[in-house]
Amino acid sequence: MITRAQQKTAQHLAAKMIRQAGMTITDEEADSIEVVDFGLSNLEKEGVQVLTLVQTERISVKVLVMLPNQTEPEHWHPPVDDDPGKEETIRVIAGTVYFYVAGEDSLQEGFIVEGKDDCYTMRKEIIMMPGDQLTLAPGEKHWFQARDDGAVMYSFSTIARDALDRFTDPDIVRITKVVES
Amino acid sequence: MITRAQQKTAQHLAAKMIRQAGMTITDEEADSIEVVDFGLSNLEKEGVQVLTLVQTERISVKVLVMLPNQTEPEHWHPPVDDDPGKEETIRVIAGTVYFYVAGEDSLQEGFIVEGKDDCYTMRKEIIMMPGDQLTLAPGEKHWFQARDDGAVMYSFSTIARDALDRFTDPDIVRITKVVES
Repeated sequence: MITRAQQKTAQHLAAKMIRQAGMTITDEEADSIEVVDFGLSNLEKEGVQVLTLVQTERISVKVLVMLPNQTEPEHWHPPVDDDPGKEETIRVIAGTVYFYVAGEDSLQEGFIVEGKDDCYTMRKEIIMMPGDQLTLAPGEKHWFQARDDGAVMYSFSTIARDALDRFTDPDIVRITKVVES
Repeated sequence: MITRAQQKTAQHLAAKMIRQAGMTITDEEADSIEVVDFGLSNLEKEGVQVLTLVQTERISVKVLVMLPNQTEPEHWHPPVDDDPGKEETIRVIAGTVYFYVAGEDSLQEGFIVEGKDDCYTMRKEIIMMPGDQLTLAPGEKHWFQARDDGAVMYSFSTIARDALDRFTDPDIVRITKVVES
């Protein structure tokens, strides 16, 4: 869980980072930024801020903001009915993104969240700068991280069903609980 | 048709407008910008510049650049096999876009390309600024225009099959021919 104050602070910071990255967003969009702690109650270390621009029955466009040194936990997008699973292209807008996928361990610049070795099993490192992008096939496990400068990126995808995402960490709950005090 | 020189000039201008809008694109992307005259050989009046960022079997993300006072001809995205047709969200990044869809005629700020009254039949005007977006259902006829400041916008969509787009103007050919001199 996060507190309402934590949520508002993260929202404001994320909106500021998006705007500093040169994107124009409306105030209504800024207020709609979702702050996600994955049920781990450790937002500064594991979490993400999400601005959903498009969400239809066919496609989804989101802006993902990573606060400095924040990590999005390892996950994948499973098949749902006759959908083979979400196909997703990540494109970096600002900052540097340390991205991890299947392959030989080359983790060097990023880091594993303390005490969470078993929850971050993909160790092939891809360092992405603004203008870089990669496409994940449905079902590909991945996680990513920002360092001191944070990061802003697009996620262009087929229909997103976040609640059905699967995570390596068994403690994760996709819906973030916000408490008033 | 357009000349190679026209193509290069439009490409460079489009890349410059995209970058001035705050987007980071690679030089390779800049060189890949498609300059489209719809076979009308009148690029300054009817045409569009297209940077394709994502093109998979499921989704497509493009940056569309309208040069000052350029108009993209009226068209729609028909069904293809078991696809009901392209669903498309337009989001303005820079400039003002004069967008036309079905509905009561409210055309006031934009203009019909000279002598082409029959080719621009949608007359409900929607004026869009940076941060504004709209979603077109498959099959919805539409056209759009920039005025003196030109415009840069995103097109987020399901799979794009541009060659199968349908146009109101019977003279249109979707593939642009480039001649060397």
